[in-house]
Amino acid sequence: MVTEERDATRMNDQQDTSSPQPPPAPVAGGVPPLEDDPNAPTDLAAFKHAFRRHASGVAVITSTRGDGTPVGFTATSLASLSAVPPLATFNMARSASTWPAIAENDRVIIHMLGRRNRAVAEKLSGPNADRFVGDHWHRGPHGLPVLNNVTSWVVGRIIERFPVHNNAVVVVQIEGGGMGEDDEALLYHERAYRVPGDRV
Amino acid sequence: MVTEERDATRMNDQQDTSSPQPPPAPVAGGVPPLEDDPNAPTDLAAFKHAFRRHASGVAVITSTRGDGTPVGFTATSLASLSAVPPLATFNMARSASTWPAIAENDRVIIHMLGRRNRAVAEKLSGPNADRFVGDHWHRGPHGLPVLNNVTSWVVGRIIERFPVHNNAVVVVQIEGGGMGEDDEALLYHERAYRVPGDRV
Repeated sequence: MVTEERDATRMNDQQDTSSPQPPPAPVAGGVPPLEDDPNAPTDLAAFKHAFRRHASGVAVITSTRGDGTPVGFTATSLASLSAVPPLATFNMARSASTWPAIAENDRVIIHMLGRRNRAVAEKLSGPNADRFVGDHWHRGPHGLPVLNNVTSWVVGRIIERFPVHNNAVVVVQIEGGGMGEDDEALLYHERAYRVPGDRV
Repeated sequence: MVTEERDATRMNDQQDTSSPQPPPAPVAGGVPPLEDDPNAPTDLAAFKHAFRRHASGVAVITSTRGDGTPVGFTATSLASLSAVPPLATFNMARSASTWPAIAENDRVIIHMLGRRNRAVAEKLSGPNADRFVGDHWHRGPHGLPVLNNVTSWVVGRIIERFPVHNNAVVVVQIEGGGMGEDDEALLYHERAYRVPGDRV
């Protein structure tokens, strides 16, 4: 259901079983537990435990290959970088099937998803061949795929692709966009889609 | 209440009034509205409108200056990059008061916050001089400030600082960490702290 385009933690989250967590085991080659907390995990375990306690907004990034084929994926790594100029970042694996398009095409569409878009979030994190089968999208600026009925979308120009190991941090300068009906923002947390709840 | 350390969108969000949004005005030098949506905002307006519809988890990044002085800020840009090796990213302005420490010190602590940590999220996004006044933190690994009673924290080594205009994307490799009592994850959305609500 979830493919390599999802950023790695989330993908791993979803690949985990939903059974209760065993105590973290020492990680081979990891550093010793920090301080005197007997439950302190190390390295990968620390990373996984921490991100399991972090909630994320859900976005979909789309682009096209050289021949116009639409590509895209559901991302939980979208973040703002600056307002002036308007910049955002997202992270991905360079082994992802969407990467060749992101590496070549200078433009992408970034979609913000609401509660009503849960099915499209799942579709765009499902099998590649199925992601653009259906009437849930249309061609927008630069011929890029724009998902229908999202809460907001922006078109942006990729200004940096920073490689880090087999991943990339992609920096996008926003050029314009469109808005849809408002909705509760879609979240991903603890292997489930959620919407924001109480103000605290 | 919110300083330059907050990533730019969120800072701008909080600086906005909470009055209803006027229709987006054309942005000087911006591209024309896309497609035939009369409400399509452009450039900065598109960016702001879109990120207003995106929810984020809340984290706190801390480090120390060369003389050991603790520094830190509340971040809504934390994202995972890969699980193997365990990598995360966060974004910040290089004009931020915390930047000199992030530029020099190779290590940071990243804290995941829960509902019970709302006050510390506000404190670490408040006036610089007040952020470490109090008993809400202690010295952890490498003498770095660790906030008390968070849901999880990790210590990481900064492996990249990618400059983008007057900002930076910071890449951290996680080395270990500690866990606290679980809690509902703290979110920031629509200028308010929230916790996750319904599964959808």
